[in-house]
Amino acid sequence: MRKSLATVSLSGPLSEKLTALATAGFDGVEIFENDLLGSPLSPEEVRLRCADLGLSIDLYQPFRDFEAVPADTLARNLRRAERKFAVMERLGADLLLVCSSVAPESVDDDALAAGQLRLLADRAAAHGIRIAYEALAWGRHVSTYDHAWRIVEQADHPALGTCLDSFHILSRGSDPKGIADIPGEKIFFLQLADAPLMTLDVLQWSRHHRCFPGQGGFDVAALVAAAVRAGYRGPLSLEVFNDVFRQAGAASTAVDALRSLLLLEESAGLSAPPAAAVPSGFAFAELSAADTEPLRGVLEALGFAHTGRHTGKPVELWEQGEARILLNTGVSGRRQGPALTALGVETPDPDRAAQRAEKVLAPVVPRRRDPLDAPLNAVAAPDGTEVFFCRTEQPDHPSWTGDFADVTSRARLRERTESPGAVRRIDHIALTQPWHQFDEAVLFHRGVLGLEADDSLDLADPYGLVRSRAVASPDGGVRIILNVAPAPDAEDARLQHVALATDDIISAVRRVRQRGVGLLPIPANYYEDLDARCELEPARLATLSELGILYDRDERGEFLHCYTATVGRVFFELVQRTGGYRGYGAQNAAVRLAAQHLHRHGA
Amino acid sequence: MRKSLATVSLSGPLSEKLTALATAGFDGVEIFENDLLGSPLSPEEVRLRCADLGLSIDLYQPFRDFEAVPADTLARNLRRAERKFAVMERLGADLLLVCSSVAPESVDDDALAAGQLRLLADRAAAHGIRIAYEALAWGRHVSTYDHAWRIVEQADHPALGTCLDSFHILSRGSDPKGIADIPGEKIFFLQLADAPLMTLDVLQWSRHHRCFPGQGGFDVAALVAAAVRAGYRGPLSLEVFNDVFRQAGAASTAVDALRSLLLLEESAGLSAPPAAAVPSGFAFAELSAADTEPLRGVLEALGFAHTGRHTGKPVELWEQGEARILLNTGVSGRRQGPALTALGVETPDPDRAAQRAEKVLAPVVPRRRDPLDAPLNAVAAPDGTEVFFCRTEQPDHPSWTGDFADVTSRARLRERTESPGAVRRIDHIALTQPWHQFDEAVLFHRGVLGLEADDSLDLADPYGLVRSRAVASPDGGVRIILNVAPAPDAEDARLQHVALATDDIISAVRRVRQRGVGLLPIPANYYEDLDARCELEPARLATLSELGILYDRDERGEFLHCYTATVGRVFFELVQRTGGYRGYGAQNAAVRLAAQHLHRHGA
Repeated sequence: MRKSLATVSLSGPLSEKLTALATAGFDGVEIFENDLLGSPLSPEEVRLRCADLGLSIDLYQPFRDFEAVPADTLARNLRRAERKFAVMERLGADLLLVCSSVAPESVDDDALAAGQLRLLADRAAAHGIRIAYEALAWGRHVSTYDHAWRIVEQADHPALGTCLDSFHILSRGSDPKGIADIPGEKIFFLQLADAPLMTLDVLQWSRHHRCFPGQGGFDVAALVAAAVRAGYRGPLSLEVFNDVFRQAGAASTAVDALRSLLLLEESAGLSAPPAAAVPSGFAFAELSAADTEPLRGVLEALGFAHTGRHTGKPVELWEQGEARILLNTGVSGRRQGPALTALGVETPDPDRAAQRAEKVLAPVVPRRRDPLDAPLNAVAAPDGTEVFFCRTEQPDHPSWTGDFADVTSRARLRERTESPGAVRRIDHIALTQPWHQFDEAVLFHRGVLGLEADDSLDLADPYGLVRSRAVASPDGGVRIILNVAPAPDAEDARLQHVALATDDIISAVRRVRQRGVGLLPIPANYYEDLDARCELEPARLATLSELGILYDRDERGEFLHCYTATVGRVFFELVQRTGGYRGYGAQNAAVRLAAQHLHRHGA
Repeated sequence: MRKSLATVSLSGPLSEKLTALATAGFDGVEIFENDLLGSPLSPEEVRLRCADLGLSIDLYQPFRDFEAVPADTLARNLRRAERKFAVMERLGADLLLVCSSVAPESVDDDALAAGQLRLLADRAAAHGIRIAYEALAWGRHVSTYDHAWRIVEQADHPALGTCLDSFHILSRGSDPKGIADIPGEKIFFLQLADAPLMTLDVLQWSRHHRCFPGQGGFDVAALVAAAVRAGYRGPLSLEVFNDVFRQAGAASTAVDALRSLLLLEESAGLSAPPAAAVPSGFAFAELSAADTEPLRGVLEALGFAHTGRHTGKPVELWEQGEARILLNTGVSGRRQGPALTALGVETPDPDRAAQRAEKVLAPVVPRRRDPLDAPLNAVAAPDGTEVFFCRTEQPDHPSWTGDFADVTSRARLRERTESPGAVRRIDHIALTQPWHQFDEAVLFHRGVLGLEADDSLDLADPYGLVRSRAVASPDGGVRIILNVAPAPDAEDARLQHVALATDDIISAVRRVRQRGVGLLPIPANYYEDLDARCELEPARLATLSELGILYDRDERGEFLHCYTATVGRVFFELVQRTGGYRGYGAQNAAVRLAAQHLHRHGA
C-alpha cells in the first residue's frame, strides 16, 4: 500500500521534513497546518516541492471545531473552511481532515452534526475537495470511531467519509472489529500511531507519547487488517506526536517511520518480505581501537587466546570456547578510543537475513573485501554498530574465520577452554543508544533480526534513570541490551559491554585476579543486604563478597555476575546462569552503576 | 521545625549528597537504603560523616513487604529486619520506615498485620529502634493513611507509630482532615512531596514526577498544618523521586529543597519571614556585552535615548518612557556575548524585599560599590540573573538613577516619549532557564518576589516543545516568562528577551523600519490563517501582514506583537495590549519560533 507521513511527526522546518520523508521513500505526506503556517514557502511552492520530490499531498489537517454549532458559528466556520479550501487548491490537496469538535458551544446532536457536515462536504465538493471526519478520543460529544461513522452515514454525502486513527481508537479501548461495518470506500483515510500502554490522561498521552507502529503496546496491525478487509485502499499514513521525534534528526526518524510501516504491513498480512532468520548465537564481537594493548591485557586475563590474524586487514581474532572477539586497528578504530563497532550473529541463512534486512531498510554496510575473503553481509544498526550475518565453520557456507590465519595451536586453546571457569560463549552484549533512537533500535532488532523485546526497565544510576530494554532470540542464544543513559552528553552515554558466560564464575574470577586484573569493587553494604534478602549459605556469601560477585535469582534459577574496569567505551562482564534464570541482574544495577561511577572518578 | 531530606531526592554518590544537604542547611537526613548499598562507606563511616556535618539520621528507609504474611514468611521477614536493625545501630539511626506490603502473598487481614507489626516493634524496641508504618498509595491491602493508622492503633505498641507521606495521601485524594484523629505522638514521621496534578498511574506518578512542595498542585501546607495541630513535632522531611533532580547538581537541588520547606512553613502558618514586597514594575533590564554597538543600534531604532552614564562603572543608561535599559561593558559583559544579566524591580520596600529574599535562601549578590553609590540590594535567581530591589526616583528612598550622570537633555527624551508608537515600559521579560532549574525558578520568583504563576504551557518549536510558564504580579506590573528549550545544548537554549510595551505598535514598527532595522519576517501563510480564524478588517490585516505583526485575542482584549533579530542571546519584542488581554501570544509561538530558526539559519 502507499505510505504517507504527517509532517508533525518530524522535526525541523517544512522543507526539510519533505526532503527527509521523500529520501526515506515515502509516497505521500499529510501537511499539518502549523507546519505550513510557519513556513516561508507559499502553498504553490510547497506543491511544487512535493511534485519535485515525488510526494503526493494526501491530506491537509486538522480542521477543528466545525460541527453541531449554532447558526452564527456555522456561518463563521463555513467561511473559515472556504479559506482553507482556497489554500488546499493552491497546495493541490483534495482531502481535508475534520476532527470532532471540542468547542464548548457544540451540542450533542448527531442530526445537527450530520447536517452541518453535509453542508461542509457540499461546499468542499465544489472545489473538488473531500472531507474525512474523525473522532478525537477527547472529542466533546463524538469520541469513538463508530459514532463518527454513524454521523457520516447519516450525512450521506459522496464528499464526506470518515478518517480512522489507530491512536484515537485503541487508546479508548474500542474494538476495531466494528470497522468491518464501514464500507471501504467511506473510509477516506487511515492514520496510524502506536503508543506505550500507560494510564495517563488521553490528551497528554496523545500529544507526547505516540510512537511508530511496533514501538508501543497497541495492536495496530489488527486495525490495519480490519480496514483493508473493509475495503480501504488509501495510504497507510503515520501521524505521531512524540516529544523525542520532535527533537531527533528528521532524516533518521523518517527511515524509522517507514521501516515501522513495512513491518506493520508484514504483521497485518499485507506483504511478505523474506522471513527473519532468527540468529542462534553470537559469532563475534568486534572491538576497534588505535591501541589495542589495554584490551589485550583484559582479554588475556579473562582467558582468551590470540588465535588468528586476518589475512588482509589489521584485525586479530581472540577466542575462548565459542566466544570470539575481534580486535581491529583499522580505519574505524583509529577514529575513536576502544569501542564495540560490530557484532556477528550466527544465522541459519545469511543471504535471507541480508535480504530481509535490506527490505526493511537496514542500511547495508559497504565492504572493502579482498577477492579471497569469505562473503559477509552486514547492516548498520541505528547506533552505527555493524551487524554481520555469519555461519561460523558450518559445512554449508563459507566461514568468516577462513579469512584468519592461525597464530596459536588449537590444542593450547582447547586446554584453556576446558579449565574450570573458562568462558563458554558471549552471553549478551549491551549497547548504550543515542537517546533519540531507543525505540527505533528496539524495533530494528525485532524487525531485522527477529528478536523479541522484554519490558522496558528504569535502572537507578546515581545521576539519573537508565532506560533499558533487552531484545533476545527465543532460546536466549542472542541477547542484546539496549540502554539509554540519563544525560546524553555524559561520558557514560556511550558505554558498551560484552558479557561472557562461564559455568564457574568463582574459578573465573580467581584466575582473573591471579593474572593481576582487578574487577569492579562492590561495597560491603551490598553483601549485608544480600544476606538479609536472600539468606545465602554463609561460606558462599563470603566468597561472593571476597570476589566482588553480584547475585540475583528468579523463580527459575540464579545469576552471578561481575565486571571489569572500563577501557575506552567498553567493559566486560562475567556471568554465570543456572537453572534457566532469564534476566540480567537488574536488581543489582543501582549498586553496579554507583560502583562504576566511583571507580571511574575515584572513591 | 527541623528539616530533613531523603537521600533519594538528590543526585550523585551518598557522600556528596550528605555534603550538599548539610551545606544547604538541612538539620537531618533520611538514608534511602539503595544509597547506602551503593556506597563504599561503612555504616559507621556514614554515621561519622553525618556527625561531622551536623546532620542527624532521622530515618532509615524503606523496609518493604513485611506484614500480613504466612508464618514462614514472617520468620524470614523478622530475620531480614534484624539484619537491618544491626545496620541501623551502626548508623546510629533509630527510626525505620515500613511501607505497606505490595507482596502477592500478603493477606487482607488488619488483625494479622497489627499482630505482626507489634512483633516487629517489639524486636525493634530491643535495639532502641522505633517503626514508622506508612501506607503506600499502591499498597496491596493498605493504601490510605487512616487504614495504616487503624492498624498501628490496633497493634498498640510504644515503638510503633505511623508515617504520613503527603504524596501517598494527596495523590489518592484522601482528606488530610482525618490526621486530627491521630495522636501527635503516634505520628512518628512526616514525609513531604508535591506533584503536578495529572492523570497517571499512581506508581509512575510517584516515581518520576514528585517535586518539592510549592512546585506541584497539592495543598501540602494544609497537610503539614493538620499534622502540627495533631501534635506532630518531628522533622519536616522531603522525599522526592524526580527524573530531573536525579540528574541535576546535588548542591543546587538541596538549596531549592530547603527553600521549598521554608516557604511551606510560612504557608502552613508555622513561620513568618518578612512578607513579600510585591514589585509594581520593572526598574530596568541590564544587558552585558563586550561590544555594545549592535545593541545600541537596536535600542536607537526602537526609540531609546542614551540618557546617563554611571559615575563609577562602564554602564550606560538608555531610556524611553518608563523603560530603562542598562548596557554594561564591565566584568560580566566581557565573559559572554550580549546577554541579559540583571533586572531591577520596583518594590515598595527594598529593605524588606532583601530581608525576605535572604530568609528564603536567595543568594545575595556581593556588590563592589563606591562609597557614593546609592544602596542597592540584589539577589541571584537560579539561572544566575541578578534581581535588584529598586525604588526609582521616589522621595522616600535613594534612587539607583542617582549614580548616573545625565548625557541627554530630558527635554529631548520627553519629545521621543510623546511621539506615537513610543515605548511606555517593559511589558515582560522572558528568560530561558537551565532545564533542570525550571520548577526551582518558578518557586523562586513566587517565593522571593511574591509573584503568581500561570499554568505551564508547551509551545511547539520546530525542534521540540518549549516548556513555558509566566510568573507575574497580580496587577501585571512585573511579568517574567520562564522557558525551557527542548535541547539543552542548542544555541536557543539560553535565549532571553525584553518585551517593550507601546500604545501604538503600528507607528512603532513603521519607525523602526524607517530607521533601517528589520523585524522578524512572518510568513504570509500566517496571515491567511489569521484571516480565516479571526476575520480582521481587511485593511488592518493588510497592515499587520505588511509590518510582520502577530495578533492574538482573548475574551478581554487584543495583543499585537513583533520581534527584532537576536543579538547574542537577546532579542526584543514590541507589544501592544488592549482591553486587559492577559497572555503573551502563545497562539503565535509556533510560527514565531519557526521564523526565528529560519532567520538565524537562513531560509
